[in-house]
Amino acid sequence: MEYRKIKDEDKDAAPLTDDVESSGGKPLSARLVNMEASERSRWMRKTSVTFALTLLTSSQAILIVWSKRAGKYEYSVTTANFMVETLKCALSLLALIRIWRNEGVTEDTRLSTTFDEVSVYPIPAALYLVKNLLQYYIFAYVDAPGYQILKNLNIISTGVLYRIILKKKLREIQWAAFILLCAGCTTAQLNSNSDRVLQTPFQGWIMAIVMALLSGFAGVYTEAIMKKRPSRNINVQNFWLYVFGMAFNAVAILFQDFDAVMNKGFFHGYSFITVLMILNHALSGIAVSMVMKYADNIVKVYSTSVAMLLTAVVSVFLFGFHLSLAFFLGSTVVSVSVYLHSVGKLQR
Amino acid sequence: MEYRKIKDEDKDAAPLTDDVESSGGKPLSARLVNMEASERSRWMRKTSVTFALTLLTSSQAILIVWSKRAGKYEYSVTTANFMVETLKCALSLLALIRIWRNEGVTEDTRLSTTFDEVSVYPIPAALYLVKNLLQYYIFAYVDAPGYQILKNLNIISTGVLYRIILKKKLREIQWAAFILLCAGCTTAQLNSNSDRVLQTPFQGWIMAIVMALLSGFAGVYTEAIMKKRPSRNINVQNFWLYVFGMAFNAVAILFQDFDAVMNKGFFHGYSFITVLMILNHALSGIAVSMVMKYADNIVKVYSTSVAMLLTAVVSVFLFGFHLSLAFFLGSTVVSVSVYLHSVGKLQR
Repeated sequence: MEYRKIKDEDKDAAPLTDDVESSGGKPLSARLVNMEASERSRWMRKTSVTFALTLLTSSQAILIVWSKRAGKYEYSVTTANFMVETLKCALSLLALIRIWRNEGVTEDTRLSTTFDEVSVYPIPAALYLVKNLLQYYIFAYVDAPGYQILKNLNIISTGVLYRIILKKKLREIQWAAFILLCAGCTTAQLNSNSDRVLQTPFQGWIMAIVMALLSGFAGVYTEAIMKKRPSRNINVQNFWLYVFGMAFNAVAILFQDFDAVMNKGFFHGYSFITVLMILNHALSGIAVSMVMKYADNIVKVYSTSVAMLLTAVVSVFLFGFHLSLAFFLGSTVVSVSVYLHSVGKLQR
Repeated sequence: MEYRKIKDEDKDAAPLTDDVESSGGKPLSARLVNMEASERSRWMRKTSVTFALTLLTSSQAILIVWSKRAGKYEYSVTTANFMVETLKCALSLLALIRIWRNEGVTEDTRLSTTFDEVSVYPIPAALYLVKNLLQYYIFAYVDAPGYQILKNLNIISTGVLYRIILKKKLREIQWAAFILLCAGCTTAQLNSNSDRVLQTPFQGWIMAIVMALLSGFAGVYTEAIMKKRPSRNINVQNFWLYVFGMAFNAVAILFQDFDAVMNKGFFHGYSFITVLMILNHALSGIAVSMVMKYADNIVKVYSTSVAMLLTAVVSVFLFGFHLSLAFFLGSTVVSVSVYLHSVGKLQR
């Protein structure tokens, strides 16, 4: 019911394009020119955040490979996650301070909030926490490469929840494209051990599906929050999202790494690559927020899928990886999926 | 130039629906009813030949697996091919004799022919002969499983030649579907050794592409021949096609198995399964002809691809085969391809 409400308010809310709003008195042709300019700037913004997310996600995967190659680092993942949230929060605050200095504090940029507005912000962070906790248990049933393959279920769950919760229709051809995206990404990741995933016990499948639903739900819910108040400044929205992210990650530290942090210190095992990874995760996180606000979850899924393929190609040059036939076939299917999705959009 | 001519004559030729032609004097509504009935019967015929081809192709692959499991048979492949052509020729003649008895010999069912009509019939058989000869040389560069994978290039070559030679347009979405069909079929056949195909030397790739073009060309040319004279009885057309098939296969026997046939006899090494396989190949060959006459090469490619998937599923039950994750992913992509192809057809 809560999501239904968010969606309905979204419909009533004023569109993002303030210049169209303010041109009420002008003749139609002038209005059209304005609308086109604003449409164009919205398209530019959407495209640039999508590109940023794609690049950040692929460099993220490359950093992970790099850190693995450089040897294992014994830092606590929970403290790193906490640092990511803290950095994102600080960056949002810095951006806000700049805006306040230049334009003064307005209704849309003020940090203070109502219970009604802020009450939904903890939900995505809580969902991610539950998902991350489940992650430790699923490895009792699936190995790490198998988990990578099962994670592609996220694509389908995001599509289904996007349809159900945000009540946005996808055309049949876009559903076909989504199924292809999932199949193509999985194909691109196939290796000689992938068939073991078919022996996953029933509990493993259930957990994988629950995790995919949690992850998809968190994504779609974040989009609902960001779009519920289109005129609200994104940095304020991010600030509140990340404050709760910090809080939930603090809980995770207490649960999982309390002893390690107490005995070896908060920053034990941090290295240059750890710092780079935290920086990268923080920037990707902000890019995800921007994609949620200015584009949608479908764009996010395509963006991160294409990033996965980019990563593999870049890894050939950086680490001398070999591309498999499965990778070529998967990439072909993903490319056709991107094409079909855009065809579906044009037909709308 | 020759193919252009064939296509142009095809355009001028009378449509297959004789009942529509003969209803010239009737009112429009009666004509429409007639047209619908004839459309329906054409659709029924198209569907049933497609089903027949799919079933025959899958049972063909199952017979091959069965014969491999039962042990090797030392028969000459060329004599078996010759027997297939002879059997097809005999079956066409029997069908013709039945028609002559019932309806008498007409312009469309008479066996006698002009040089102009018969001159194109040797071409598909000649193309297949060249392709089969090349097949012996490609194994210097690719192993048998790799060849199975490269054979999927046939799908693309058929689509391209169908477009170029028969001048039939495929919608963009149908091209996308065709690329997916090729990627999906290849994915479904992936196994742990498939990556070796990427090490195929340049000559191997060229030969694979030439073979795909020859095979696609033979298929598209056969369609052009069958459709050049739509009212000509299919059994007459088949008879002439298969006569040249017999002739070219006789040449192949002389080239490849002359010594074996001379020393051990024509039917050396034949077994019950060999006979079943010859029977199956003959019936599939006739089904292919019918698909060419009443449907087209695109339908043929889809039909044989779906047959490949059917074979794998049936083999699970018959031979206890295991289906791989790659098979599931490939089948999903092929299914979406079939869906997109039909969507593209409806939009036409």
